Amino acid sequence: MDATIRQATDMDWPGIWRIFRRVVASGDTFSYPPDITEVAAKQLWMMPKSAENPRQATYVVLTDGVIAATAFLKPNAPGLGDHVANAGFMVDPDQGGRGLGRRLAEHILAEARRMNFAAMQFNYVVSSNARAVHLWQSVGFRIIGTLPGAFRHATRGPTDVHVMWREL
Amino acid sequence: MDATIRQATDMDWPGIWRIFRRVVASGDTFSYPPDITEVAAKQLWMMPKSAENPRQATYVVLTDGVIAATAFLKPNAPGLGDHVANAGFMVDPDQGGRGLGRRLAEHILAEARRMNFAAMQFNYVVSSNARAVHLWQSVGFRIIGTLPGAFRHATRGPTDVHVMWREL
Repeated sequence: MDATIRQATDMDWPGIWRIFRRVVASGDTFSYPPDITEVAAKQLWMMPKSAENPRQATYVVLTDGVIAATAFLKPNAPGLGDHVANAGFMVDPDQGGRGLGRRLAEHILAEARRMNFAAMQFNYVVSSNARAVHLWQSVGFRIIGTLPGAFRHATRGPTDVHVMWREL
Repeated sequence: MDATIRQATDMDWPGIWRIFRRVVASGDTFSYPPDITEVAAKQLWMMPKSAENPRQATYVVLTDGVIAATAFLKPNAPGLGDHVANAGFMVDPDQGGRGLGRRLAEHILAEARRMNFAAMQFNYVVSSNARAVHLWQSVGFRIIGTLPGAFRHATRGPTDVHVMWREL
């Protein structure tokens, strides 16, 4: 499969929003409100590099010219914690199981190293999202701790959330 | 000691900033940049209740009419994670050891219950801050996980950070 990964521009937002809206509406992986507005979603996900924020970016994966997955990368904390990166990932539900998440994850890990981050932390990996937990473990993340019932899963109800971590 | 705890108003900011600036400048407990500007600090700490954010507030403790400690309370995540509270605490370094942190913690826990939060999560308790770790454990928090070297302590260098949690 031909896939291109690059930093997102403002023109990519409609394609990102098509994925974001579906992923969040399902209420099974992200804590964002399932009925989030497009304006609020864009503020959360699009984080262009700037003079004040030189180590953050949003990325897209394109297959046949269509956005099939997206991720952001940023410091997990300001100041004295900004050597630890944070990232978020979404794959088009119609494109699952094709390895796009893994390719994007490997790209984001390389980008984080390039930006001199020393580690990467995920604050909110829903434990029932077995595919994600397995993917992160397979690329070197470990579970640091588990927050009991921290996520109100749309169909499962209270569901544990993992904090995951890996050195870079 | 006579101490009053109440929600903060905009007029309390100068007294809060006097504490915030000293606590953050020491670089030993918070990841906020030690040289943070007053404008940025105010945006981080002052979170008045509003129509969009009905479950957040900033608090002050006054002793003899002077602000001696402060805290904020807010949801730790949006949407499907907003049943978990987050809080941050700062005590005037000159007022340490007088039980103000404990009194404020008990007040914030009661406020969180009143706002129907089901649990409280601290994302960033610096492990070398033994007084804080002990205080949180003594009011029912447990360490969910420890992030290795996630804090660049001003004098100790890379220092572990605890994620702490308690049900309400």
